[in-house]
Amino acid sequence: MPEYKAPLRDMRFVVHEVLEAESAFQSLPGYEEATADLVDAILEEGAKFCEGVLAPINRSGDEEGCTWSEDGVTTPAGFKEAYQQYIENGWAALAADVEHGGQGMPNLLGTAFNEMAGTANWSWMMYPGLSHGAVKTIEAHGTPEQKEKFLTHLVTGDWTGTMCLTESHCGSDLGLLRTKAEPQADGSYAITGQKIFISAGEHDMTENIVHIVLARLPDAPEGTKGISLFIVPKVLVNEDGSLGERNTVHCASIEHKMGIHGNATCVLNFDGAKGYLIGPENRGLNCMFTFMNTARIGTAVQGLAHTELAFQGALAYAKDRLAMRSLTGPKNANGPADPIIVHPDVRRMLLTQKAIGEGGRAMLYFLALQGDIVDKGSEEEAKTADDLMSLLTPIGKAFMTELGFECANHGVQVYGGHGYIAEWGMEQIVRDARISMLYEGTTGIQALDLIGRKVLGTGGKMLLKFTGMIEAFCKEHTDEADKFFVDTLNAYKDEWLEVSMKIGEAAMSNPDEAGAAAVDYLMYSGYVTLAYFWARMAVIARPKAEGDDFYKAKLLTAEFYFKRLLPRTQSHKQTMLSGADALMQMPEDLFAL
Amino acid sequence: MPEYKAPLRDMRFVVHEVLEAESAFQSLPGYEEATADLVDAILEEGAKFCEGVLAPINRSGDEEGCTWSEDGVTTPAGFKEAYQQYIENGWAALAADVEHGGQGMPNLLGTAFNEMAGTANWSWMMYPGLSHGAVKTIEAHGTPEQKEKFLTHLVTGDWTGTMCLTESHCGSDLGLLRTKAEPQADGSYAITGQKIFISAGEHDMTENIVHIVLARLPDAPEGTKGISLFIVPKVLVNEDGSLGERNTVHCASIEHKMGIHGNATCVLNFDGAKGYLIGPENRGLNCMFTFMNTARIGTAVQGLAHTELAFQGALAYAKDRLAMRSLTGPKNANGPADPIIVHPDVRRMLLTQKAIGEGGRAMLYFLALQGDIVDKGSEEEAKTADDLMSLLTPIGKAFMTELGFECANHGVQVYGGHGYIAEWGMEQIVRDARISMLYEGTTGIQALDLIGRKVLGTGGKMLLKFTGMIEAFCKEHTDEADKFFVDTLNAYKDEWLEVSMKIGEAAMSNPDEAGAAAVDYLMYSGYVTLAYFWARMAVIARPKAEGDDFYKAKLLTAEFYFKRLLPRTQSHKQTMLSGADALMQMPEDLFAL
Repeated sequence: MPEYKAPLRDMRFVVHEVLEAESAFQSLPGYEEATADLVDAILEEGAKFCEGVLAPINRSGDEEGCTWSEDGVTTPAGFKEAYQQYIENGWAALAADVEHGGQGMPNLLGTAFNEMAGTANWSWMMYPGLSHGAVKTIEAHGTPEQKEKFLTHLVTGDWTGTMCLTESHCGSDLGLLRTKAEPQADGSYAITGQKIFISAGEHDMTENIVHIVLARLPDAPEGTKGISLFIVPKVLVNEDGSLGERNTVHCASIEHKMGIHGNATCVLNFDGAKGYLIGPENRGLNCMFTFMNTARIGTAVQGLAHTELAFQGALAYAKDRLAMRSLTGPKNANGPADPIIVHPDVRRMLLTQKAIGEGGRAMLYFLALQGDIVDKGSEEEAKTADDLMSLLTPIGKAFMTELGFECANHGVQVYGGHGYIAEWGMEQIVRDARISMLYEGTTGIQALDLIGRKVLGTGGKMLLKFTGMIEAFCKEHTDEADKFFVDTLNAYKDEWLEVSMKIGEAAMSNPDEAGAAAVDYLMYSGYVTLAYFWARMAVIARPKAEGDDFYKAKLLTAEFYFKRLLPRTQSHKQTMLSGADALMQMPEDLFAL
Repeated sequence: MPEYKAPLRDMRFVVHEVLEAESAFQSLPGYEEATADLVDAILEEGAKFCEGVLAPINRSGDEEGCTWSEDGVTTPAGFKEAYQQYIENGWAALAADVEHGGQGMPNLLGTAFNEMAGTANWSWMMYPGLSHGAVKTIEAHGTPEQKEKFLTHLVTGDWTGTMCLTESHCGSDLGLLRTKAEPQADGSYAITGQKIFISAGEHDMTENIVHIVLARLPDAPEGTKGISLFIVPKVLVNEDGSLGERNTVHCASIEHKMGIHGNATCVLNFDGAKGYLIGPENRGLNCMFTFMNTARIGTAVQGLAHTELAFQGALAYAKDRLAMRSLTGPKNANGPADPIIVHPDVRRMLLTQKAIGEGGRAMLYFLALQGDIVDKGSEEEAKTADDLMSLLTPIGKAFMTELGFECANHGVQVYGGHGYIAEWGMEQIVRDARISMLYEGTTGIQALDLIGRKVLGTGGKMLLKFTGMIEAFCKEHTDEADKFFVDTLNAYKDEWLEVSMKIGEAAMSNPDEAGAAAVDYLMYSGYVTLAYFWARMAVIARPKAEGDDFYKAKLLTAEFYFKRLLPRTQSHKQTMLSGADALMQMPEDLFAL
């Protein structure tokens, strides 16, 4: 496995220089204490934990996997101990509200920590990872009693949470779900049904697990408007807060998967399990959206995490491995061959990883900061931040995971045949990354969310808020030295609006036009969004690049991004404007011919 | 695992209608017997074997894998029996020369059979797969005695062959290899060294294995000009042809890999093993190129195979799985939801697989036919065919495997979360496919071969032969109804020549310009090449499409390819023309910052 070293220098650059987080936190009530110094200190401590505790059990966790028995699931060696250390050090509570035992640090800091933990060991990271969403859901929709009973334990990490949506016949289309909830005399509900693909649905790390479950009340309307949300603890909690009887929810099996072997993906059987309604009846899907948005940004971080890990592995190998001579003459004349980093195509792959990783970090940390503004900002600030988050969440999730998978594959490719062999650890990154484009809404689902609900559904308003930011940025930066980045970005901003308009018009007469354009539109939008963040980073780095290698590298990476990755927009543009007919006119029976 | 059904209708279309193979065979001495009827009969029999014998042990082979012990390697259950049936039915000898026990059928037919066998079970297919290259090498460079001793057994499949190039410190750069060959008194050589990544290097299917090994003679020049080629049998062969002593070549271990678990990837230790020089001293790499080109086309077929299998699996699921309603209103009003094939993005993925699979089949069968013309055609015909093969082999290998991997991933994506679960068999296709961009020369190596040796190295002559074919095709097809395909293709042909010229000019002053453009250039070339084959198929299908679903589907798929895949060229074009600086100017130390 490539050794993981947290990219603290770059993280600080994004937090302090790109996002100017300290001054942002000063104006967000409750976050005033998150000074730059404190943030740096926390990141450094976090890095030690992730590098020293989580990274060393990443490959062994993949090899060993999880073990199911009637009594439950055993996680790979070291996972349980690492979790214990994680909660003892207070990492679980880092970004949670002080009111329920959290440390009250901003979401941005939590995201930065999650990036490090997820890069070090994604499978491990998923155990506590889903708790965040459960916390958010109970915070937003729980009764005071539910908060007291469940929230504090989730915040401290004593218990973990899950998200029980999927059933074997329905994932994307939750309207089809069948799990039932029967009201009981005591005000609770008896939950009956089977849920699948429940990440961390059973494990040996904590004494209780809090399942957040979607189910139908008797006589609920069909479809998505008849779904309610329930809290179903693995072990029932007595009135005094102590643990009581085992609830009748059991893990029937765990899946054999392509990757994330260290994480238990569970089939959960609810046999009249006791559950508590959370939020209003039949409004469960709306409540669950709180959870899902958190999880989607979390999954976007997975794209970043695998990009970073694959980059670190590939870079080390590219400097070390000797093969062939540079096309422009030997660069290591005393050795038998040159290190492969001299070869243009190896550099192409490394720079792609670097540009996507660093650009993605800026984008996702920006998204995390918007979350903080939503939570603590003024009403007006919160509204804008919420719109930006709504627009950028599907882009972040789908674009970053698609690119994360690409970058994981570049990691394998740089290693040549060795990349395919388990012991080097690079192929695991590809296998672990592959799930990210599937769970928490596939790329296709995210693309429909973006174009349908976020762009066309708001009459372009959300998009205009973001392109307005881009426009303001471009107007502000008039220095001749920034011209290449600013002018290119500005032109793309116009083109983005133009293609959005064209697709919107086409979709008015035929809704399939939106569906046919969706994924290309999302990828196009992703490249332009990343161009904005790269331009922001370039204008910061440019005046400091003389004599400082960090800023020089930043500026050169920006140039690489604009010249060699941003042109990918052009294929997506041409394809999405080619119309739906090429997709829709083939009769179903003719596919097989 | 998706059930495999050989696409015989499409195979016949390519063989008979696109390539007009029967008439081609009539003019190739020795192939006159390969009539359309015979070809069809053989394909049908082959399909039965591949569907009935090989496909059922594909997933079990992945799950079980190979087992190493001091005594050798045990292949997964059923592999040995399937191999026995394969040689008993004469499949091994199908396309080999009659002189050495072969059936003398054309290479095109062998490739078609290999496609079916490889789609049904790639891991199994690799055991006999590498024998073809060993056969070609001994045919071309062996002494009469070597042919008698080894060739007949390889042809019938009694023994298998391997290709021993890679050592732990060198794969792409064979000039670095260290394995030694010491001349012995009896005229043989003692081979000492370690080879890695030897596919089918050890197994339990045959009583002997013939290793084709690259090694250095004492005092050989350094680098690639000091490499010689040797035949090293696992079991020595007595003068009378009977098996003698065990040779001192042993399998030290097998690799734990991402995929192709059913195939043994071996570390082979040669401890003074007895070997026989084949071909001239120090010219081993040239002799090995015969082998490597065969293997490269074989690997190109892997891209096609995984595309086809992923398509068949995804199509079945897309018709069966119900989720959400069509954007244009219910298509399955009596069911709880519509089958997902109604959704534009699912169709995008299916049609991508279909277009790449069918287009790739036409391209690779065309390549195989060129091989037949090289073998049996007139000198002039052979020269042209050889040039076309030289140009199109790196494109076929790299482009088809890159696209095969993409299409395997579409297969997973259509299944949603289920695609990630082993039992559905879709994730195995991704894992099996990933090796194809690495072995037999990575995508980067193929790209350098294409742009450096084949295009610029011949002053564009090879490329002009192929674009001349495209031009002739375009001039020939003047019907208004074909205009869209013909005009688009013609414009791309011009653009291809133009970008080749531009890169050639840039590379004159800076060789890194060729390296920096290489992979984008190869992918661009691949899309244009496939456009040529799709245009050929479209003009054949168009007049027959009315009232015939097969031709109608073909025409619609051609339209999809031109409208929604061919535009990918535009990103590659813009990127490759953006210059080498963006890749080369980053100092090595700055990558980490």
